[in-house]
Amino acid sequence: TEVARYLGVPRLYLAANSGARIGLADEVKKLLKVCWTDNDPAKGINYIYLSKEDGETLSAKGSVQGHLIGDNKTGEERFKLTDVIGLTHGLGVENLQGSGAIAGITSKANRDIVTISYVGARSVGIGAYLVRLGQRTIQHVGHPILLTGFSALNSVLGQELYTSNMQLGGPDIMYRNGVSHLTAISDIDAVNRTLEWLSFVPECRNGRLPMLPTVSSSSPLTGDADRPDRTVAVKPKSGEDVRDCLCGKEVKDAGFLPGFLDRGSFFETLSGWANGIVVGRGRLGGIPIGLIAVETRTTSRIVPADPADLDSKKLNLARAGQVWYPDSAFKTAQAINDFRTEDLPLVVLANWRGFSGGTRDMYDEVLKFGSYIVDALRDYEQPVIVYIPPGAELRGGAWVVVDPSINKEYMEMYADPDSRGGVLEPEGIVEIKYREKDLKATMHRLDTTLMEYDAKLNELVSSEASAAEVSALQKSIKQRESELLPYYRQMAVAFADLHDTPGRMKAKKVIRRVVQWADSRAFFHKRLRRRLAELDAVKKLRAASPSTTQAEASSALKNLFCADRKAEKEKEKEKRSSRAKSLKALGLVPRMRSASGSDRTDDEEKIVAETEEEWQDDDLVLKWLARSDVNERLAALGEKMVAEEVRGRCQSHLHTVLQVCTEEVRRSGGDDDAVKAAVKELYDALFASSK
Amino acid sequence: TEVARYLGVPRLYLAANSGARIGLADEVKKLLKVCWTDNDPAKGINYIYLSKEDGETLSAKGSVQGHLIGDNKTGEERFKLTDVIGLTHGLGVENLQGSGAIAGITSKANRDIVTISYVGARSVGIGAYLVRLGQRTIQHVGHPILLTGFSALNSVLGQELYTSNMQLGGPDIMYRNGVSHLTAISDIDAVNRTLEWLSFVPECRNGRLPMLPTVSSSSPLTGDADRPDRTVAVKPKSGEDVRDCLCGKEVKDAGFLPGFLDRGSFFETLSGWANGIVVGRGRLGGIPIGLIAVETRTTSRIVPADPADLDSKKLNLARAGQVWYPDSAFKTAQAINDFRTEDLPLVVLANWRGFSGGTRDMYDEVLKFGSYIVDALRDYEQPVIVYIPPGAELRGGAWVVVDPSINKEYMEMYADPDSRGGVLEPEGIVEIKYREKDLKATMHRLDTTLMEYDAKLNELVSSEASAAEVSALQKSIKQRESELLPYYRQMAVAFADLHDTPGRMKAKKVIRRVVQWADSRAFFHKRLRRRLAELDAVKKLRAASPSTTQAEASSALKNLFCADRKAEKEKEKEKRSSRAKSLKALGLVPRMRSASGSDRTDDEEKIVAETEEEWQDDDLVLKWLARSDVNERLAALGEKMVAEEVRGRCQSHLHTVLQVCTEEVRRSGGDDDAVKAAVKELYDALFASSK
Repeated sequence: TEVARYLGVPRLYLAANSGARIGLADEVKKLLKVCWTDNDPAKGINYIYLSKEDGETLSAKGSVQGHLIGDNKTGEERFKLTDVIGLTHGLGVENLQGSGAIAGITSKANRDIVTISYVGARSVGIGAYLVRLGQRTIQHVGHPILLTGFSALNSVLGQELYTSNMQLGGPDIMYRNGVSHLTAISDIDAVNRTLEWLSFVPECRNGRLPMLPTVSSSSPLTGDADRPDRTVAVKPKSGEDVRDCLCGKEVKDAGFLPGFLDRGSFFETLSGWANGIVVGRGRLGGIPIGLIAVETRTTSRIVPADPADLDSKKLNLARAGQVWYPDSAFKTAQAINDFRTEDLPLVVLANWRGFSGGTRDMYDEVLKFGSYIVDALRDYEQPVIVYIPPGAELRGGAWVVVDPSINKEYMEMYADPDSRGGVLEPEGIVEIKYREKDLKATMHRLDTTLMEYDAKLNELVSSEASAAEVSALQKSIKQRESELLPYYRQMAVAFADLHDTPGRMKAKKVIRRVVQWADSRAFFHKRLRRRLAELDAVKKLRAASPSTTQAEASSALKNLFCADRKAEKEKEKEKRSSRAKSLKALGLVPRMRSASGSDRTDDEEKIVAETEEEWQDDDLVLKWLARSDVNERLAALGEKMVAEEVRGRCQSHLHTVLQVCTEEVRRSGGDDDAVKAAVKELYDALFASSK
Repeated sequence: TEVARYLGVPRLYLAANSGARIGLADEVKKLLKVCWTDNDPAKGINYIYLSKEDGETLSAKGSVQGHLIGDNKTGEERFKLTDVIGLTHGLGVENLQGSGAIAGITSKANRDIVTISYVGARSVGIGAYLVRLGQRTIQHVGHPILLTGFSALNSVLGQELYTSNMQLGGPDIMYRNGVSHLTAISDIDAVNRTLEWLSFVPECRNGRLPMLPTVSSSSPLTGDADRPDRTVAVKPKSGEDVRDCLCGKEVKDAGFLPGFLDRGSFFETLSGWANGIVVGRGRLGGIPIGLIAVETRTTSRIVPADPADLDSKKLNLARAGQVWYPDSAFKTAQAINDFRTEDLPLVVLANWRGFSGGTRDMYDEVLKFGSYIVDALRDYEQPVIVYIPPGAELRGGAWVVVDPSINKEYMEMYADPDSRGGVLEPEGIVEIKYREKDLKATMHRLDTTLMEYDAKLNELVSSEASAAEVSALQKSIKQRESELLPYYRQMAVAFADLHDTPGRMKAKKVIRRVVQWADSRAFFHKRLRRRLAELDAVKKLRAASPSTTQAEASSALKNLFCADRKAEKEKEKEKRSSRAKSLKALGLVPRMRSASGSDRTDDEEKIVAETEEEWQDDDLVLKWLARSDVNERLAALGEKMVAEEVRGRCQSHLHTVLQVCTEEVRRSGGDDDAVKAAVKELYDALFASSK
């Protein structure tokens, strides 16, 4: 584990154990004697002892502790035992200490690297904890993960209530509650699934993502590769399996319609648990990503009965689609955390109406698990794309916990034109903000019949007509109003809905761009390539200078790009203007706008705005980042940042640094003359500068 | 929040809100027109539009987006609305973005500093999330924390199922599930409790703990201070309230018997949740500590019924004492994490038979929450004392998750002589390791009756007696065996129990020392003072040189101490030997052992062993750390470590450093002559050394 953590490579744990070892000291067992009360076993034990000789021999060897006493009756000297240590190491608490050590180290490993456990035989007690501390678990369908064996539980409970270990920790329990991410029907199956899992993960933490080669539309399709720039043919539909949109599906007559991901690349985990949320890994044009999608169908949660609690029964709870429950919020956060240590970019196909806020779910700590989502995204260090697909919606609290402002450096949000987002659903807004009074006002403004009635009423009132006439008209108005009310409420809902459009999201800058579902694959593939390349460059800068923040390094990179673009533009402008001059010299061009000072400032600003705009252009940035001189200049920038940092430290420790320099020069020079020369150079430089 | 995070001071959030703001664009609402299908409202809406003029005006202002269309019938030009943006900022999604930003920042704040929220009025939706993201929550008993109001839930469910918001998020829900740490009956009560809470917490993260002055037994008792070195008078007893041992209790005739903590200092939190575990803050001789203790009595967990689920009913689940359940494991981990950001030393009075491993608890993710305990201890950065009090036991998995090897630099374990620890309880071990066969063998070795029978049997067999005689004797043997079996099983349990004693724990070095409950207060008070002083010194070293690990800095400190002690001892020895010499010169002493080379090495080793031993002496180390010259030398050591670090960086960036030095000297000098002098000095130093 230490090696894995040092290298940052994944750690695989093949779990098979029956808990901590137990034992008794056999060398004492075969010599022990008992002092019964009144020498009568029926009266119970007084104490346990060894003969004086045995006691002295064994205590000298460190096997026992105790003291000599004289027997009341016989006066015989006996070695009364107070502690049995045992000659064999590994009988009791020392095993727990060892277990604590591996528990601590597994916990650290899970924080730092990819940890996967395969439960290929039963895993008991601390073994079960090691499995969970490593989080990612593949469980053989025939083997349990448990704390206490069923027979030990029965003996504690004093009844034969449990009949097998599988009842306590088989896949029916552990796969359904998300302890096991996957199940395997055989060892070879487990190996295959592990390898498939690892195929998405970099060789070591913060290493390069294992990208598969992609083919562009212009080059022929070879092998299994799936063009990144093709359209997504399966559209999300409420009531259909969301996996179809991800993986594609076979349609009668039409053949295979491809989905969002590369064909056959989706690798789902945790599917036994909280299945209102679908999580897994997949490839997008060869890029490994973590993926979270939402089930629109009603799912069910099955809670097993506990044989030890006679009141308990198996429950089958219906779960509405598009809603976060305590377990599905937990699953979402768990998946994000898993993806994080796997260094995967994350795509969230967001479609949530909100969190379930009923009494039971509030009691079941939905707030805690919902908060986990924010905490998990806060720590993410790869690009996160939150995308609201067509027909999907994202409301209130559900929006808040995935909003990019949680982690600005890494998160971005997008929406399909047919998606919706807002605080409440339009029906809810209308109830509060477009009440009956407002609706009636709108009717009177728009409905021709009501307008006629109103005119007539005015007439009647001003002509001092009879009360009966007025009241009859008022009744007609009332009737027309109540006739129209449902239709106008519908209208109000439609109006409120216009406030929840991607157009408004873009205008309010809460999403970066509106992206059509059909084009989403091509768009996000390019976007991810750009973001990964950009973050890679930023990572290099930060590696050179650890005290630089992510935001500082990002902006340094952007400035380098903008400066480059600006220089290029100015060169071009110069070329144009010199060409114009030469043309002018030939008398061929109309007079040019005079290059006055203010014009120049305008130009400057225009260029800055343009380069800002160009920084948003993924193609351009990707091309720029691929240039070999950019890499060199990034390295130079890194060196400069190091220098800044060292300078910072020098400022606070000038004396130390001078000393260190002296030693340093002395050490690196070896030869005294070289040392003198180096210092002379420094000396001269100073004198020269002061002239 | 940013300021609080920057300064590291606690952040207090007074929560009162009704969720994200919602609104409709009034300027559009009063102008909108509707195109009904076939001009008949009953047939539904075709689209919503504005007059051409209104549309153009509002879209120019950025209030709406849409496009002009011609009406089929009238040919009238209309501005069909596609998005309503609204002139007022803050109608919809932009509020969610803002909420996301505060959610992200609250999550970061909770990671970095002490965050406390007071829910003094209802807190809804994102407000509820902000409260939970800040973790520590004080809830006014009259105000709910909820996601969706009860009337909105009723309208979603289509029935009047819920009758109040308190049903969803009142203290009956939120205090019982651990979202609320405390309740308050009034604002002033909340202020008092917040102040009391803050009285345990340093002014800023990693600051000095707010210690109260203590009185020693030799100085008179003044005010409320409670002597740290007094004995603990209340002994833990199974079936009694564990809080009595912590806080002391009034006993008839005997008056007040003091407990482990300073009188009146215990401040319990989360007591509504998982009450098999008691957590809170308190003072130990003036030192603020976090405390975790275990209830030995049976407690009950009350699960409320959900009005929306007609099958659900209120449950009252009995919970055995000394056992970790999913909720109490979660509570334990939550408390540790809370204490951690409060920079409190932690004392765990450990008394757990294990984790509950029945079907329902396994399904309810006891493994996940148990793992949280390990994860929380792994990250702890203050002294952690795990102590098994008298009558308490710590077994198997429960031991593993609190074993000091999880976080060696900070954790230590102790036990009272009357405590027990092991993998299984003795009964369980005997079942496996001292089976009937073994028990019988022991009987035949020890029981005089059986020994007689055996002798007789041998005789009979060798004398070729009749089968009847043999079988009769064999029957007698069997009978005696089954008579003795229960007593010998009892004896075996007693024998197995001898393997679980603190004596064995100490011998196996899984605990640091055996500490009597009565002396525990005095012992741990001194120990904590020493550990805090030691960790404070280590912290200073690490602050000087951030790349130094905790272990490296610890060992540097220890080496400094040992070197000091060694020097002192040698001085003393010299003094002794010179005195011996002068005595010898006077002919007054017998001949001294000749100081041969090997003797000197032995002496050396002896001194090293002695200083190692002295490092374990809290008094000695405390005295040493308080010496003023030690502080100076620690500062010098810190400077040296900085130099090492800067040197390390210089080695990889020699050229940069030379440049930086030049600039640095130039800058700090200001005056060129001073610069010249400084460099000259360096220059001279080099020349001088090369001579």
